[in-house]
Amino acid sequence: MIKAGIIGATGYAGAELVRLLTNHPDVEIKWYGSRSYIEQPYADIYGSMFEIVDADCDGEDLVELSKTVDVIFTATPQGYLLGALNEEILSNAKVVDLSADYRIKDAQRYEEWYKIHHTTPEFLEEAVYGLCEINREDIKNARLIANPGCFPTCSVLSLYPLVKEGLIDENSIIIDAKSGTSGAGRGAKVANLYCEVNESIKAYGVTVHRHTPEIEDQLGYAAGHELTLNFTPHLVPMNRGILVTAYASLKEGVTQEMVDLAYQKYYQNEKFVRFLKGAKAPETRNVKGSNYVDVNAVVDQRTKRVVAMGAIDNTVKGAAGQAVQNMNIMFGLREDAGLEAIPMVF
Amino acid sequence: MIKAGIIGATGYAGAELVRLLTNHPDVEIKWYGSRSYIEQPYADIYGSMFEIVDADCDGEDLVELSKTVDVIFTATPQGYLLGALNEEILSNAKVVDLSADYRIKDAQRYEEWYKIHHTTPEFLEEAVYGLCEINREDIKNARLIANPGCFPTCSVLSLYPLVKEGLIDENSIIIDAKSGTSGAGRGAKVANLYCEVNESIKAYGVTVHRHTPEIEDQLGYAAGHELTLNFTPHLVPMNRGILVTAYASLKEGVTQEMVDLAYQKYYQNEKFVRFLKGAKAPETRNVKGSNYVDVNAVVDQRTKRVVAMGAIDNTVKGAAGQAVQNMNIMFGLREDAGLEAIPMVF
Amino acid sequence: MIKAGIIGATGYAGAELVRLLTNHPDVEIKWYGSRSYIEQPYADIYGSMFEIVDADCDGEDLVELSKTVDVIFTATPQGYLLGALNEEILSNAKVVDLSADYRIKDAQRYEEWYKIHHTTPEFLEEAVYGLCEINREDIKNARLIANPGCFPTCSVLSLYPLVKEGLIDENSIIIDAKSGTSGAGRGAKVANLYCEVNESIKAYGVTVHRHTPEIEDQLGYAAGHELTLNFTPHLVPMNRGILVTAYASLKEGVTQEMVDLAYQKYYQNEKFVRFLKGAKAPETRNVKGSNYVDVNAVVDQRTKRVVAMGAIDNTVKGAAGQAVQNMNIMFGLREDAGLEAIPMVF
Amino acid sequence: MIKAGIIGATGYAGAELVRLLTNHPDVEIKWYGSRSYIEQPYADIYGSMFEIVDADCDGEDLVELSKTVDVIFTATPQGYLLGALNEEILSNAKVVDLSADYRIKDAQRYEEWYKIHHTTPEFLEEAVYGLCEINREDIKNARLIANPGCFPTCSVLSLYPLVKEGLIDENSIIIDAKSGTSGAGRGAKVANLYCEVNESIKAYGVTVHRHTPEIEDQLGYAAGHELTLNFTPHLVPMNRGILVTAYASLKEGVTQEMVDLAYQKYYQNEKFVRFLKGAKAPETRNVKGSNYVDVNAVVDQRTKRVVAMGAIDNTVKGAAGQAVQNMNIMFGLREDAGLEAIPMVF
Repeated sequence: MIKAGIIGATGYAGAELVRLLTNHPDVEIKWYGSRSYIEQPYADIYGSMFEIVDADCDGEDLVELSKTVDVIFTATPQGYLLGALNEEILSNAKVVDLSADYRIKDAQRYEEWYKIHHTTPEFLEEAVYGLCEINREDIKNARLIANPGCFPTCSVLSLYPLVKEGLIDENSIIIDAKSGTSGAGRGAKVANLYCEVNESIKAYGVTVHRHTPEIEDQLGYAAGHELTLNFTPHLVPMNRGILVTAYASLKEGVTQEMVDLAYQKYYQNEKFVRFLKGAKAPETRNVKGSNYVDVNAVVDQRTKRVVAMGAIDNTVKGAAGQAVQNMNIMFGLREDAGLEAIPMVF
Repeated sequence: MIKAGIIGATGYAGAELVRLLTNHPDVEIKWYGSRSYIEQPYADIYGSMFEIVDADCDGEDLVELSKTVDVIFTATPQGYLLGALNEEILSNAKVVDLSADYRIKDAQRYEEWYKIHHTTPEFLEEAVYGLCEINREDIKNARLIANPGCFPTCSVLSLYPLVKEGLIDENSIIIDAKSGTSGAGRGAKVANLYCEVNESIKAYGVTVHRHTPEIEDQLGYAAGHELTLNFTPHLVPMNRGILVTAYASLKEGVTQEMVDLAYQKYYQNEKFVRFLKGAKAPETRNVKGSNYVDVNAVVDQRTKRVVAMGAIDNTVKGAAGQAVQNMNIMFGLREDAGLEAIPMVF
Repeated sequence: MIKAGIIGATGYAGAELVRLLTNHPDVEIKWYGSRSYIEQPYADIYGSMFEIVDADCDGEDLVELSKTVDVIFTATPQGYLLGALNEEILSNAKVVDLSADYRIKDAQRYEEWYKIHHTTPEFLEEAVYGLCEINREDIKNARLIANPGCFPTCSVLSLYPLVKEGLIDENSIIIDAKSGTSGAGRGAKVANLYCEVNESIKAYGVTVHRHTPEIEDQLGYAAGHELTLNFTPHLVPMNRGILVTAYASLKEGVTQEMVDLAYQKYYQNEKFVRFLKGAKAPETRNVKGSNYVDVNAVVDQRTKRVVAMGAIDNTVKGAAGQAVQNMNIMFGLREDAGLEAIPMVF
Repeated sequence: MIKAGIIGATGYAGAELVRLLTNHPDVEIKWYGSRSYIEQPYADIYGSMFEIVDADCDGEDLVELSKTVDVIFTATPQGYLLGALNEEILSNAKVVDLSADYRIKDAQRYEEWYKIHHTTPEFLEEAVYGLCEINREDIKNARLIANPGCFPTCSVLSLYPLVKEGLIDENSIIIDAKSGTSGAGRGAKVANLYCEVNESIKAYGVTVHRHTPEIEDQLGYAAGHELTLNFTPHLVPMNRGILVTAYASLKEGVTQEMVDLAYQKYYQNEKFVRFLKGAKAPETRNVKGSNYVDVNAVVDQRTKRVVAMGAIDNTVKGAAGQAVQNMNIMFGLREDAGLEAIPMVF
């Protein structure tokens, strides 16, 4: 059994890690790290875990933790791992970081968008961006995984075949994303109260959202050169799910058939990416609670654009599920171990 | 008192007309037309109207109705008014049509998008597109109002200043729209059941939605020439509200200040259009139950694009409210009579 | 114009007062008191009020306020008015208190249930319990109104005819109540976050909820002697609305017809109380946004019990709307002034 | 591998059976019966099953089906199995009926409450009421399981220890139940549209709901004699979940400790029933997507009553999950096989 520790186990991403790892056939959770609830029974925070998890919440001492487990998941606020990571930890245990701290290879670019000083840029080079379907080989031998953001996971997988195959003008990309409210975290903020979110939709972080450079970097790697794009997230009154609707100008002569072939090329052997084909539009409910990504792309010859769409569960493929998938790859387990859940469509 | 008749009074747009007109100081509803509930008490269909509306539902005889009222509202399916309208009706009463039957000036274009044969194109020329803030003068003397669609209302008002002032490349427009579920109507369809809509979001009508030509026409009139654009609606798990997030490429040298001035120019004297300015993003809850439209536009110098946003209540400004506003203008009433409701933010 | 001041104008009850009073034909709001947002534009807190309310938030100095207005609404936490009220204030302005501070006539009973020391019991006798339909005459001359709680309003009005007419065994009453989430207030608590409330229902305050003695007192007055009952509130994933389902044992020989006559006797001339009759069950959507109370009672001869039901909008008839109704009565205005809103059923 | 067939596989209970059985280690689904979607790909009805279920929908020929499978699940409307069941079917395959057709032992009582003529009462005696925790031994050898209703499952398990141990006056029981909307089924009815259910709560079937006799029967068996009670269901704007809040008069001298011991006695060895103890109230989110039942009971010495509460997922423990649990017991499998899912709390 692989021993796992979680830092930030009482946040929504952390809770989803607990849910997935508790049922994982090869993993045992040894550490339920929490800043706010130390020594309280974990099941007092999440009543769903009553009689399932008996442990109390632990603290956040990463070095101590690294000596007792094989893998550490950090589901922590931006900046936490910057200050906490060191060589000793990485030599003791593998680390899957669900924050953005090591996702942007250029420390200065990180600082510009995150307004946080990057104190440990020495780990940036070895950190592997854990988008499993794209970087599987590099993940196998990684010590440090920068687990992708929820929006970047959905955005990149929705557009990757188009960019990689050169079917679109990369600088024409516009990504309009919609997220369930768990993406806003479990902090006690007025803006996330039930009555503030329910029965409404709004954009936020317009032109300045932090996931923008992450998406640009990853699609730029696929394109072979830097690109810029527009990314606008929206808050939707639902618990889970991200839907991406992306637009781009088609290169001359590109047809629906060419687009379909591109998606099939990259995804036909990927269990977790389902290419819907035809006129079907991804729906977040179809992936709810699961690690699936549903994608499709519709060519509009009238406007010479393509509309690419993708749906994920932000807390699974967009966070905890992909973290487990990364762990599975790193430890040579079956890639879908612990991730067999079928979407709970209603 | 102006005597009003409603055809389609038991659908959601019709019910909203009943709600608004019942409290209108200058109007008396004389006819609650319904195909499905004839002779049933209206308050049996909408329990909210118990002891407020005592009438039973009436039938759908337009000619008869036109003899007894001053204004007829048709909140009916596409094609109904095509077959029912005639000169006698229009000479008896003013007609505000909430369907799309007379919105597209080119009958062939209507037929292409709606797959319905246009049988009464002779009324197309005189029909006035009832987007009050843009066509106020023409509305005053109209006999037949083509009340704008919910998405077109929000889309056009969100982009009008940019197009009219020539600040953007018109053929670069992409409109990503999100709608509450009342927009899908009150028909008994599995797709609109609570458990099918709740906790999910999806696009629909991708590249082929019928509101596309209506938006293109209206923005084309503003631009002074035809244009094409992408329009993608999404279904959101909430009762009311439309949010439009629109993207367009800025013309060389256009600044945030120029954009702000354009919105102020067209909207500073419009009660129902609120230009938010600054970094504020419209939220549908801020206009819920009211006739307001909240708009804003953010310039992104990094990508040379503008993100224009708008929020309306689809059943008020997007349907019944604007219909009442049109009636007010046609009958020389105060334009906001019966429309003073303050948004019910939660 | 009556000059009104609100203490606690940025909470949900306060915001609803602002919404209702802004459209009230005879009232002008002069003071938007807020503890957290002093000197911030009110419309920055509630974007719905943009271009409708131009004022900034004021502080909470009751004495100063009482010199400038005719009526003060205190939408404040329990205990605030205990410490703030004095004779000077009451001689300057009428006070409608939306908290529970003066609802329980017995200070000791208040202290037992609220765990707060009652420091100004000298005002308890003159305070009038502002359940308008029951205490209208006393309200007319009151200086201090104890505006009823949301659950007590709905519970008492649902059961009043049965108790007053002696049709049930008063000590058999069981009240099972369900509330929308606005009842939990606008405080930033984890328990009220969207993802904690959505897609779930739970009871709270089982056997110990503070509204219990208030309901017992008021029904006891109707019965002519003290009584005890069970009251259990539940949190429902919706913004607004309270539904009460109450059970009681019928006295020997009581029929449905006798029950119906009792409800008609007390409510047939009450605009805001709608007795549904027959098999119809009240629904909170049928009163949403309005001051209506929908009630009904079904006799079950099989079990010799009656099931009494009532629905209100907790923020209107359960708080701000009833406060305005009390003000209207106190100032000799039309009782429904500012309260004509028709329910927004969807 | 056990071969299973499902009649009614496209309804909500049927879909949940598909979800659970697809991941069951010992079961293979051979038949996806559907009245409305014969020969259509199952994944076209539930997009969540794309690339997971490749089969098309089958018809509803029970005899044919019984020859090819080991167990048949009928997730069908009331009355279907009355007309379809015969000895041949039962000699071929075991049947788990999710409808109410064989739950009420007294055919006349069934007919009174269901208004359906019971045409095959000869199977009533052998049918075993599949409330697993109560009737486990009888289930082992059954051919025909009457799978309990969603409300009866939650109601009976919430009250069973109190009744069985004689701690309450059985004729004092009042059950106030709240259900998510999946309980209303997937039929295309206006009453179940999103905008009709959302943002509202109501009671339905007041004093006449069909689950009443089922609950009375089962609690009567526990008590050792017939009893009557009140049962009132409510429709809650959420997809899943049933919450029961039940009230009963305590027998003289009964204490909280005695109540706690009763619950521990019956449930301490039951994996799926979690007795919460203390002041904790069950929440439906804590069991969502799982087969758990969370129960608790609070003694109110002030009123001499007990408030018993229970929460289930109506589609799992209230339907498909319990059906699988019954199958597991009948076939000698591990009782929680295929039911290990951890609740998806948000």
